[in-house]
Amino acid sequence: MKAEEITKRRAKWSVAAQHLADADTPIIRNCWYALCRSADLGRTLAARTVAGVSVVHFRKEDGTPAALHNRCCHRSYPLDRGSLDGDTIVCGYHGLRYNACGQCVDIPHQDMPKTKFGVRDYPVIERAPFIWIWMGDADKADPGLIPHQYWLDDPDWTTDIGYFEVRGSYVHLHENLLDLSHLSYLHAATFGTPEYAAAPCDIVIENDNIEVWRSVECVLPDVYAKPLGWVGAKARRKSGSQLVSPALHVNTGIFENLDAPRTPNDPPMVKVAQVITPIDNRNTHYHYSISRNFAVEDETVTQHITAGVTSAFKEDLAALEGVAEMHAQERPDEFFEIDIPTDRAGLEMRRRFKRWADAEIAA
Amino acid sequence: MKAEEITKRRAKWSVAAQHLADADTPIIRNCWYALCRSADLGRTLAARTVAGVSVVHFRKEDGTPAALHNRCCHRSYPLDRGSLDGDTIVCGYHGLRYNACGQCVDIPHQDMPKTKFGVRDYPVIERAPFIWIWMGDADKADPGLIPHQYWLDDPDWTTDIGYFEVRGSYVHLHENLLDLSHLSYLHAATFGTPEYAAAPCDIVIENDNIEVWRSVECVLPDVYAKPLGWVGAKARRKSGSQLVSPALHVNTGIFENLDAPRTPNDPPMVKVAQVITPIDNRNTHYHYSISRNFAVEDETVTQHITAGVTSAFKEDLAALEGVAEMHAQERPDEFFEIDIPTDRAGLEMRRRFKRWADAEIAA
Amino acid sequence: MKAEEITKRRAKWSVAAQHLADADTPIIRNCWYALCRSADLGRTLAARTVAGVSVVHFRKEDGTPAALHNRCCHRSYPLDRGSLDGDTIVCGYHGLRYNACGQCVDIPHQDMPKTKFGVRDYPVIERAPFIWIWMGDADKADPGLIPHQYWLDDPDWTTDIGYFEVRGSYVHLHENLLDLSHLSYLHAATFGTPEYAAAPCDIVIENDNIEVWRSVECVLPDVYAKPLGWVGAKARRKSGSQLVSPALHVNTGIFENLDAPRTPNDPPMVKVAQVITPIDNRNTHYHYSISRNFAVEDETVTQHITAGVTSAFKEDLAALEGVAEMHAQERPDEFFEIDIPTDRAGLEMRRRFKRWADAEIAA
Repeated sequence: MKAEEITKRRAKWSVAAQHLADADTPIIRNCWYALCRSADLGRTLAARTVAGVSVVHFRKEDGTPAALHNRCCHRSYPLDRGSLDGDTIVCGYHGLRYNACGQCVDIPHQDMPKTKFGVRDYPVIERAPFIWIWMGDADKADPGLIPHQYWLDDPDWTTDIGYFEVRGSYVHLHENLLDLSHLSYLHAATFGTPEYAAAPCDIVIENDNIEVWRSVECVLPDVYAKPLGWVGAKARRKSGSQLVSPALHVNTGIFENLDAPRTPNDPPMVKVAQVITPIDNRNTHYHYSISRNFAVEDETVTQHITAGVTSAFKEDLAALEGVAEMHAQERPDEFFEIDIPTDRAGLEMRRRFKRWADAEIAA
Repeated sequence: MKAEEITKRRAKWSVAAQHLADADTPIIRNCWYALCRSADLGRTLAARTVAGVSVVHFRKEDGTPAALHNRCCHRSYPLDRGSLDGDTIVCGYHGLRYNACGQCVDIPHQDMPKTKFGVRDYPVIERAPFIWIWMGDADKADPGLIPHQYWLDDPDWTTDIGYFEVRGSYVHLHENLLDLSHLSYLHAATFGTPEYAAAPCDIVIENDNIEVWRSVECVLPDVYAKPLGWVGAKARRKSGSQLVSPALHVNTGIFENLDAPRTPNDPPMVKVAQVITPIDNRNTHYHYSISRNFAVEDETVTQHITAGVTSAFKEDLAALEGVAEMHAQERPDEFFEIDIPTDRAGLEMRRRFKRWADAEIAA
Repeated sequence: MKAEEITKRRAKWSVAAQHLADADTPIIRNCWYALCRSADLGRTLAARTVAGVSVVHFRKEDGTPAALHNRCCHRSYPLDRGSLDGDTIVCGYHGLRYNACGQCVDIPHQDMPKTKFGVRDYPVIERAPFIWIWMGDADKADPGLIPHQYWLDDPDWTTDIGYFEVRGSYVHLHENLLDLSHLSYLHAATFGTPEYAAAPCDIVIENDNIEVWRSVECVLPDVYAKPLGWVGAKARRKSGSQLVSPALHVNTGIFENLDAPRTPNDPPMVKVAQVITPIDNRNTHYHYSISRNFAVEDETVTQHITAGVTSAFKEDLAALEGVAEMHAQERPDEFFEIDIPTDRAGLEMRRRFKRWADAEIAA
């Protein structure tokens, strides 16, 4: 393609791209994000950066979580380097004490009122296996909005969880997850099968929901065929991706053995919660939970599926890193991207994220 | 604390903060700073960055120091990579020669006048154990302003010196040193004792002087109790911090054994010169000298005290690094700090530094 | 030199410097640059950054080279992570296929025209031992402009080639190469001899050509004396540097043994092609070829000369890195450089590069 064509594409793209979130769009803050795993929250102080803010967090004596801005309001010492006394954080620099709401309750040996001292506290709620935090307007932090998924509490399901840190924007991670057409290429060696890209794609865009589904008749990849005992059998694989919120993306796999008689039971299913928390505009916490409703007692099945699924995740993360490098290097006057039909769900997500981010800034 | 409160604090703080130096304030240049230790200045070229300028320095044949801008005025080669011929620096790239005043004395085999060639020279004076340099207006470089301390030459005292490189601004290092209230917290494990924070603080702010003093009755920490032979004894510890210049901060400790009869002798004292040289706005050379007027012949006492004092210094340096990270990460529209009464000396220092820096820019 | 003098120099310099290329000048794109060595181009995808653009390249089935912008126009995946199918690149993310001209020839299973998809292709031609690429206006990519040198094809000559990556601007690398006066200083330990700096310098500046020559009577340095069998003999060494294009600089050495009778044969010569490709404004690919017309069959002579010449190159690269550090650190209001007569060729090069870069931007 010639340089003049590039210039034309660029001009056309830049008009449409104004309405799409990308790595430079301010992070959506009015959202419940996973701060950490339940198992990681304890009686010692820890810090993690969410949406550009360092957050110190701990489990209170009553077992509930607490999360504060991790910067003493006196001389900016990181509070996670201090200590915990009951539910009180003691700053390690000058001994200022903050309760779990971020109110200063003591300034040792200083003759002055402490009422004007304090650090911002963030609404934080546990829905095991994750701790959820709200970085935006506290008045809007409705616990009903926490995107907790039912199967995580269902005894007929079993769940394995894990974590990666991603060198890439949460926008691009969502875009990757709403796009099933890359399975046959990027994941050819793991859980993609060649039939995937060819299968028709059903994109559902409704008020609060973006979903993408595909149904494929194929021999299942090993990651699922082995634990189901279906190696070599012809199967139907229905795969769905659903954007639940900027913090959660759910993938569903529903399997049917076409070489065996149908049974009245629930079909075997795998649900993967992709739990996405922006660190900053270019880095992302990526928790995942992998749940299934079959062989729930069998730990070797858990290990087999987790190993298979996470090797595909690593392919995604490497891809996002590569894309981020290309974006970073691009000459601003030559950059453009062209969409394909299966991008429709991702584009709708990016339009919404842009709209939400703009609305937060305007507020 | 809620977001709206943060916004109010921020607004209030930003008015006051305009008059305070911080890491972004231009570095004060009209000041004698320690360039290096006497022992480090020799007959080979060395370079060090002071106030953002790379400086090449060496000891002349007559033993006195010389310091020049470390960049050949021809093609910007670092002069410290060249060689020394008598008191002449020979550039390693094209052989240009500079005398110790930075005048070009030879451009080999080039048919042109050399008078317009030269590199900036900086006033530089030795007051052992340090070499002092003036990065500002040479006309103001009065040697009488060198903050040399008497006890460094006094045979009744002995001194140990050392060096750290600090990831933090010289402003914040001075602020740390003018603040004795952190001893009980940050230095709880080293030379702080719990009584410290509780003791009344005497802040002296005069024309040319900022001093902070505290007097505490306590069992001395091991770092001093052991060499004095006062382990377990009740003692009075008077501690003072004095800001001498942007380049020097002096800490004094005066000890009295309250379990022993008073003597007519001078009390045992420790003087620590904190010799502070900004590398650039966010990094600092930190030389220190630790002097005492007791057990001056005993090298094991020197080792014991230096080990104790420098482990506390390392706590300070780690704190400054943590504070710098918090400052770097902070969202500009949410940053604020609130002062406590014992900050008064530090705030006065920051007001002065801001005023001096502004005056240098206006000049 | 005093601060006021610095300010005057700075003012004077900044007027002249407007017309000289430096590390900040946009890179000249209308030029054939070496992309890689012939031997490095194969049937697998590789990527390299040239003039700020990541370029994916491979050898086509017919043996000729192909080079495309290394970013899929769909979702910016690096194409070099995909695979090669015949002469078609298959993107590793969603399977888009591009022919060797960058035209999209397939978007798997997507119901849309592919005509508007494509990535920029770059003119690319092999002249062994190098592959040459044109990053600018394709209409101007006249193969006749490729700065291929005759002796690389001449059976009476033998050539050794190699590569370094340079932390420095291609402008400063050219400046270094047009300047023979540094040989006696920077290369005193390798191939400089003291007579060099003293010898008169003949600078030829013509329409399309910049050349610098020196003729020195000396004992040759070991790097040449040993393979010629002239150790200790008096010799005439004529050395020339020629700027061929922003991508090539040729050094020539012609040797005559003054202690031996003249022969009618061609004199022994060494030709070094300094093949210079900007990675970006501050980093440079540096290929070199070292050719000679004597002892052409003798591999130990090749090793001896390459070892000697490349140790001098390493001195140059270290110098360029030092200069880049000094430039990076310099306070913008104090920076200046002063020229000497032997800089005339380099200054003319920098004027031309600036003019060419400006013209490309205006176009």
